[in-house]
Amino acid sequence: MKAGIVGANGYSGIELIRLLMNHPSIELEMLVSHSTKGASISDVYPHLSGLLDKPLEDFDADKLAERVDVVFFATPAGISKDLLPECLKRGLTCIDLSGDFRLKDPEAYETWYHHAPADASLLNDAVYGLSEVNRRQIEGASFIANPGCYPTATLLGLAPALKDGAIDPGSIIIDGKSGVSGSGKQMVLGNLYCEVNESVKAYKLGTHKHLPEIEQEIAALSGETHPVTFTTHLIPMTRGLMTTIYATMEKGYSTREFLQLYERYYEKSPFVRIRPIGTWPATKEVVGSNFCDIGLNVDGRSRRLTIVSVIDNVVKGAAGQAIQNLNIIKGWDEQTGLKLTPIYP
Amino acid sequence: MKAGIVGANGYSGIELIRLLMNHPSIELEMLVSHSTKGASISDVYPHLSGLLDKPLEDFDADKLAERVDVVFFATPAGISKDLLPECLKRGLTCIDLSGDFRLKDPEAYETWYHHAPADASLLNDAVYGLSEVNRRQIEGASFIANPGCYPTATLLGLAPALKDGAIDPGSIIIDGKSGVSGSGKQMVLGNLYCEVNESVKAYKLGTHKHLPEIEQEIAALSGETHPVTFTTHLIPMTRGLMTTIYATMEKGYSTREFLQLYERYYEKSPFVRIRPIGTWPATKEVVGSNFCDIGLNVDGRSRRLTIVSVIDNVVKGAAGQAIQNLNIIKGWDEQTGLKLTPIYP
Amino acid sequence: MKAGIVGANGYSGIELIRLLMNHPSIELEMLVSHSTKGASISDVYPHLSGLLDKPLEDFDADKLAERVDVVFFATPAGISKDLLPECLKRGLTCIDLSGDFRLKDPEAYETWYHHAPADASLLNDAVYGLSEVNRRQIEGASFIANPGCYPTATLLGLAPALKDGAIDPGSIIIDGKSGVSGSGKQMVLGNLYCEVNESVKAYKLGTHKHLPEIEQEIAALSGETHPVTFTTHLIPMTRGLMTTIYATMEKGYSTREFLQLYERYYEKSPFVRIRPIGTWPATKEVVGSNFCDIGLNVDGRSRRLTIVSVIDNVVKGAAGQAIQNLNIIKGWDEQTGLKLTPIYP
Amino acid sequence: MKAGIVGANGYSGIELIRLLMNHPSIELEMLVSHSTKGASISDVYPHLSGLLDKPLEDFDADKLAERVDVVFFATPAGISKDLLPECLKRGLTCIDLSGDFRLKDPEAYETWYHHAPADASLLNDAVYGLSEVNRRQIEGASFIANPGCYPTATLLGLAPALKDGAIDPGSIIIDGKSGVSGSGKQMVLGNLYCEVNESVKAYKLGTHKHLPEIEQEIAALSGETHPVTFTTHLIPMTRGLMTTIYATMEKGYSTREFLQLYERYYEKSPFVRIRPIGTWPATKEVVGSNFCDIGLNVDGRSRRLTIVSVIDNVVKGAAGQAIQNLNIIKGWDEQTGLKLTPIYP
Repeated sequence: MKAGIVGANGYSGIELIRLLMNHPSIELEMLVSHSTKGASISDVYPHLSGLLDKPLEDFDADKLAERVDVVFFATPAGISKDLLPECLKRGLTCIDLSGDFRLKDPEAYETWYHHAPADASLLNDAVYGLSEVNRRQIEGASFIANPGCYPTATLLGLAPALKDGAIDPGSIIIDGKSGVSGSGKQMVLGNLYCEVNESVKAYKLGTHKHLPEIEQEIAALSGETHPVTFTTHLIPMTRGLMTTIYATMEKGYSTREFLQLYERYYEKSPFVRIRPIGTWPATKEVVGSNFCDIGLNVDGRSRRLTIVSVIDNVVKGAAGQAIQNLNIIKGWDEQTGLKLTPIYP
Repeated sequence: MKAGIVGANGYSGIELIRLLMNHPSIELEMLVSHSTKGASISDVYPHLSGLLDKPLEDFDADKLAERVDVVFFATPAGISKDLLPECLKRGLTCIDLSGDFRLKDPEAYETWYHHAPADASLLNDAVYGLSEVNRRQIEGASFIANPGCYPTATLLGLAPALKDGAIDPGSIIIDGKSGVSGSGKQMVLGNLYCEVNESVKAYKLGTHKHLPEIEQEIAALSGETHPVTFTTHLIPMTRGLMTTIYATMEKGYSTREFLQLYERYYEKSPFVRIRPIGTWPATKEVVGSNFCDIGLNVDGRSRRLTIVSVIDNVVKGAAGQAIQNLNIIKGWDEQTGLKLTPIYP
Repeated sequence: MKAGIVGANGYSGIELIRLLMNHPSIELEMLVSHSTKGASISDVYPHLSGLLDKPLEDFDADKLAERVDVVFFATPAGISKDLLPECLKRGLTCIDLSGDFRLKDPEAYETWYHHAPADASLLNDAVYGLSEVNRRQIEGASFIANPGCYPTATLLGLAPALKDGAIDPGSIIIDGKSGVSGSGKQMVLGNLYCEVNESVKAYKLGTHKHLPEIEQEIAALSGETHPVTFTTHLIPMTRGLMTTIYATMEKGYSTREFLQLYERYYEKSPFVRIRPIGTWPATKEVVGSNFCDIGLNVDGRSRRLTIVSVIDNVVKGAAGQAIQNLNIIKGWDEQTGLKLTPIYP
Repeated sequence: MKAGIVGANGYSGIELIRLLMNHPSIELEMLVSHSTKGASISDVYPHLSGLLDKPLEDFDADKLAERVDVVFFATPAGISKDLLPECLKRGLTCIDLSGDFRLKDPEAYETWYHHAPADASLLNDAVYGLSEVNRRQIEGASFIANPGCYPTATLLGLAPALKDGAIDPGSIIIDGKSGVSGSGKQMVLGNLYCEVNESVKAYKLGTHKHLPEIEQEIAALSGETHPVTFTTHLIPMTRGLMTTIYATMEKGYSTREFLQLYERYYEKSPFVRIRPIGTWPATKEVVGSNFCDIGLNVDGRSRRLTIVSVIDNVVKGAAGQAIQNLNIIKGWDEQTGLKLTPIYP
């Protein structure tokens, strides 16, 4: 099977390359990058020299249709909504890592992304690719809206409790912490080393694009629509993302009972690991891998559950989950090409 | 006025040295360090060579009484409860940066600190040195329990809203993020560079020593006793501490109205700076200084207030506030020796 | 083929585990760790949970002989010299990642390592496992002294020029820069986050254990014995090692001619990559992989050649090269299990 | 005395602000920043809010002449050569932190800086402000070319040995390591957090602008002109700069004798600290201060001296030395406003 990547020059693109080079059933055939077209990928990224010397090409739906079977879009917001339909039309399997097709409501997209939305029918066709939760719908799909990094960690952390009715969906507060690669290679002051290093910064309170996505999917899981409180923080590290989630309990479970609930829910999900009682994950323990590690703590006094969920934002939060979704679509073992041991230390 | 430091070898001790060297009315006279006694401070800390070449001495209450007027205890938990009373007896002004005298309830101390508590009457005598909130009690006091780093950022972030009755004290959730210097120079695996770097870690959920301290002082501010939810995270940076605080509103203030409330409350407090609407602080913006910077955000949909509060954990969270308290005790300008511009970048 | 690791708890041990799990012809059978015996490896290292749940056992040469074919020693200096001979005797292939068998001269070992040396005949038997340089001797060997991290980067950077006689071996100056994982998990002040972070430190000038190893192998490459100047620096990063090497030229080559010389020398060495003229490597470009990337610059005015050589210290500088050596011993493709794309960013 | 800063928005500018706010005899009167004119400095840099709320203005030589006595230029290369003469003409004392007036040879400037040079006579008038070496010429001067960061660390490290004739000036090799603030706030890929973090990178071999400056001043110190080898490396830290310098000895001094030579040379220079035998400085030990710390090591076998010299690149390497020079010009105590204890940890 042959694959193309649109937006190969960004950090999600380059991670797709790393992971797809390791995938036994996929051949990387076409790399598209508007900004660096003409160059070889290994000129732009010397770490690939001797490993992959493909040229970066301009976007051309016909060429993609001719040469590949699946296209990954690792583009900034506002790009794939125009380009991806061209590929869908030509019968290609499309996996979009941007936010362009995640929100079912076109108006919400316009409000949060400040772009004209894609066609409502297309938005409807896109399957929200939270692999562990939507596996059924992903099987056999041909068009995936790959979840954002914060929503991935958050929703995997919430799904078992919400499905069980064990927590109040109206009480959810999400405190997110992300490494800098989440903001990509954007040339903005806030991404400069000297501005980020030795600092934690709270940003975009109440305005982060991932907020409506999280609310939409919490509603899908719980059957109820509620506003959630969501705060994001920039952490001085390259990779890694944690969400610490707070919710009021509806059922009087102990930590141990919650852990059992989670273990059961993720029994057939090799990429989700539940931590033993009294321990919580560090982002370092998943870096380089497709794992989502989850730790729990019940505070009986306040009847609140605290959930700590970590991922590598460019793997499970982007490129890894995209490939996991392709594996599911194709009926391959979900872990194909993704049996990656975290890099430690 | 002459000062001594007990625990001069730790990170709070060394910061007391940096700040006191800059104080016009205090002379550093005696440095006590059990673990490195005999050495000169500039042998242990070459950054002080040429600046301060004092010897490190063993603890001796009589010598302290002879040579100094005020003693700062920058010792690990469980030390000052035994040593400090010896200094008090001898008429010395004592400022304790450890947790030994912060909890008014001896049993709570035993439960959370796993040491035998100090005498209940001594615990009662200690004034909780949250400068901006307890200025009155601090004036003229001779024995200060200096607040912990997480409580300082948290309580300064909550005080105006709690005093006003604008938030529900039973709804408070505190998500703390601290640089590594908060854990001191302890030789434990979790403080090694390779374990901390490039990682965020949640730790001590429900068991952090600062939890009862925060609850005690929230009760003092609000007049009500409630359990709070408090989660702490280790951030890969040396200095800096942020608490992101979530609470349900009792009054329907807008963000702007909350900002005005905070501006008013801290009108005469030069070390607390309130951020303009739509902006939130980064820890980097206070590093090296005694500032606590606070940003606010109201989410009208969920009726929740989010408070972002940052300090330099070794300055306002330890040594700086200790000196601020001494300034208040002595009736000096609160900013004496503490007019420090944050180091940026 | 079955493998055992002695010293599985250290950073080289844990990296051997990561890499061997990825090796198609090797099965990890026995993990030895004196300090953490009894525990499961995934208790000590949660990043391995769900991937490898083997127990950590005490050293037992008989058990090793029974259960494995090859033993990797990832132990601190002064351990394998006693344990490894027990395994050799029992017919096991032994690869030592410590410094115990690298120096041919027992007295030199005693001088630099402050331990009693191994038997001189054993020292003679050990093949110095600098894969690209000593491939012939490694083929079919059963006992490898795996090179140190600094020597690996340095000697790969020097070999083509020395073999050609293009530089004066008496003029060599090596400026080394290493990430903190090179110093392992040792519980010493200098490995604490707050001591290392935001700092470069020069250390062990003239006394680093890797100095005699480098001199020994430069002599082997050039046929002449000279003292070299070698300075090491600690860099605030976890992985990565660079040596910047300075030497006076004996032949008037241009940078381009040197690059051709190096390209030719490493033509059949897939793990060494030579950078195009005018570019030099960053350690980040090899992290997670077994590559050694080399850049060159001739300064015609001073007749000096500058060589910049980078590796991941725990891969090519330790675990990766050890496996590469095993591949060579066994006649397998040198890259078996080691086709690792560097993790970027 | 009133001061203006041209280029107040950059990292050297902001450090000048921090230091001048602490200077008892200088009042900050005018901040010039072309790129952010109109804004208040505390809008651009929230860490200054409540401390300094001055507007950023456009450059205007007449206004400067009216309002200030001394102007600091903290501008990128190629700016002050045009603006500074306007201020000189109007009788202002000018201290240029850029490279525009450091090279005495106009052609060299053109070659290395790729700009048209300033007038030769102006270049001649500028006093090279290496405070400890050129104190005499600085006294009473009105126009200072403040040294670059690499040259400052390098030349202070070399001066005593060169003046003594103890090393061969033709043998000098300089291995430089700098934190990222040295490259300023430039919006280039190489300054992005994800590109710099967890990496050491060698850059600009043989082409760094500081090379001709170093050669010019070595010639001034030694009386001989030689090419030096100079390699620069980017280190993942914000502040701090180290040069490790290698030279062949002309005199058979021991390390101890060299240390004495250096102690004597810097006897009256409070900002240069010589480390005791067997110890070498870390950049962390000078961060935030105007110190240059130097350690030495003689390798008798190779007859080479290794010099390790560290500074805070934005203090002694820029803003601090600029103020030190103003102090010398004015006949004030050299340390006025600069008695800064390094921030540790």
